[in-house]
Amino acid sequence: MVKKPKWVIEKEQARRQSAAETVWLFGLHAVRDALLNPRREKLRLVLTKNAADRLGDAVRDGGLAPEIADPRRFSAPIDPGSVHQGAALEVKPLDWGPLAELVTHGEGRAVAVCLDRVTDPHNVGAILRSAEVFGARAVIAPARHSAPETGALAKTASGALERQPYLRVANLANAMEALRDMGFVLIGLDGAAETTLEAALAGAEDRPVALVLGAEGPGLREKTRETCDILAKIPFASDFGSLNVSNAAAVSLYASRQNR
Amino acid sequence: MVKKPKWVIEKEQARRQSAAETVWLFGLHAVRDALLNPRREKLRLVLTKNAADRLGDAVRDGGLAPEIADPRRFSAPIDPGSVHQGAALEVKPLDWGPLAELVTHGEGRAVAVCLDRVTDPHNVGAILRSAEVFGARAVIAPARHSAPETGALAKTASGALERQPYLRVANLANAMEALRDMGFVLIGLDGAAETTLEAALAGAEDRPVALVLGAEGPGLREKTRETCDILAKIPFASDFGSLNVSNAAAVSLYASRQNR
Repeated sequence: MVKKPKWVIEKEQARRQSAAETVWLFGLHAVRDALLNPRREKLRLVLTKNAADRLGDAVRDGGLAPEIADPRRFSAPIDPGSVHQGAALEVKPLDWGPLAELVTHGEGRAVAVCLDRVTDPHNVGAILRSAEVFGARAVIAPARHSAPETGALAKTASGALERQPYLRVANLANAMEALRDMGFVLIGLDGAAETTLEAALAGAEDRPVALVLGAEGPGLREKTRETCDILAKIPFASDFGSLNVSNAAAVSLYASRQNR
Repeated sequence: MVKKPKWVIEKEQARRQSAAETVWLFGLHAVRDALLNPRREKLRLVLTKNAADRLGDAVRDGGLAPEIADPRRFSAPIDPGSVHQGAALEVKPLDWGPLAELVTHGEGRAVAVCLDRVTDPHNVGAILRSAEVFGARAVIAPARHSAPETGALAKTASGALERQPYLRVANLANAMEALRDMGFVLIGLDGAAETTLEAALAGAEDRPVALVLGAEGPGLREKTRETCDILAKIPFASDFGSLNVSNAAAVSLYASRQNR
């Protein structure tokens, strides 16, 4: 047998990897939003008869013939515990293009969110919703140790995954440096900081800002913390307690809008 | 056999009901916080040897002898999928006393949160954390169709369940009327409202406010909506999307602090 040249092997590996990088979205809401998103590459649609009826025009507009499944033997390869409502759609992750293009186009002050190893899909889903509502240009997270684009994330994001840029980057600190080069002020959220978020936002004047949040517990990693221009806290009334990370993100995004 | 008088039967029923109203908390964090809370009535403590070591002084201070369980056969009656970390504690729900006492004592402007049928324990847990951080006097929810005080709620609340008053009332509209009689302005959050939250808070001047939030999807029930003094929206940059209910609560609480 002739040994394959290395480049062929590598190309095949890349194709297999790329092929594996698909996501099964589930639930009527998430599947409908993805079907209606022309930028979404759709591979396979599995529906019960009932779900097909309920999705109606979205199935036609999605341009993908559904496989009709028996509700008692739903054939899509998703976690059996998932509340799929009879609808599952295999898709490719969205390609949002280069960071620089995303963050430099839009109205008003540019705001970006950087997430340092936030792994819980429910938190990231909620953050994508808040980012969309408050008009953040992008949510940026490291490719490793972050919530991947999964069906669970899509369901919590309640449609925002289709519309809110969520970029997974090889190195978060490098992406933060790139934002700084584009004029962004990097504000790291840290409960132990002396400066308040309001003061940090006021200090940034009319420059674009990136809000940098860490996972609950570990907080910001040292390298991430050092890369920030300033650390700031959401002022607390209480000596106890801390905000859930998605709630901290929502409050920061709201504050950044107020200080525009 | 002598028939028991009705009042004896009723008393026994009440006792059985009351006995059934216990909660199994689980996870090291939730169990430690409950053990250290002198107001918490503790009934049964089940720990693995390892968890007992990790909880250390908290077990001694809790004043309840632990039952040591084999990690492979953890004997507490909790959902098998629960991340219990070898620690479970049976407790009575906290008795926070009358609403009027809770909301009339404290510094600064009084803020309360009313939740209209928010059933997801993760959302209610996150809201309790935000309520604590931003100094809300009480979180009020109807006894039925709300997330009960469960282990899952306690875990998400990350300690706040022990410290943040969470009152389940028979009738939410009646509790809202009682707040109004105490001088509260009742602000209902509604994405379709014309007034902004900031304007509504400014209009309340220095009066205490109750922030009223509904479940995602259905929103506020008609009766709840009618009972509010004013409906207000968190201003959205986006035409699409909506905030997760716990994120909407966090933003509203933060805004109420700013406008104090």
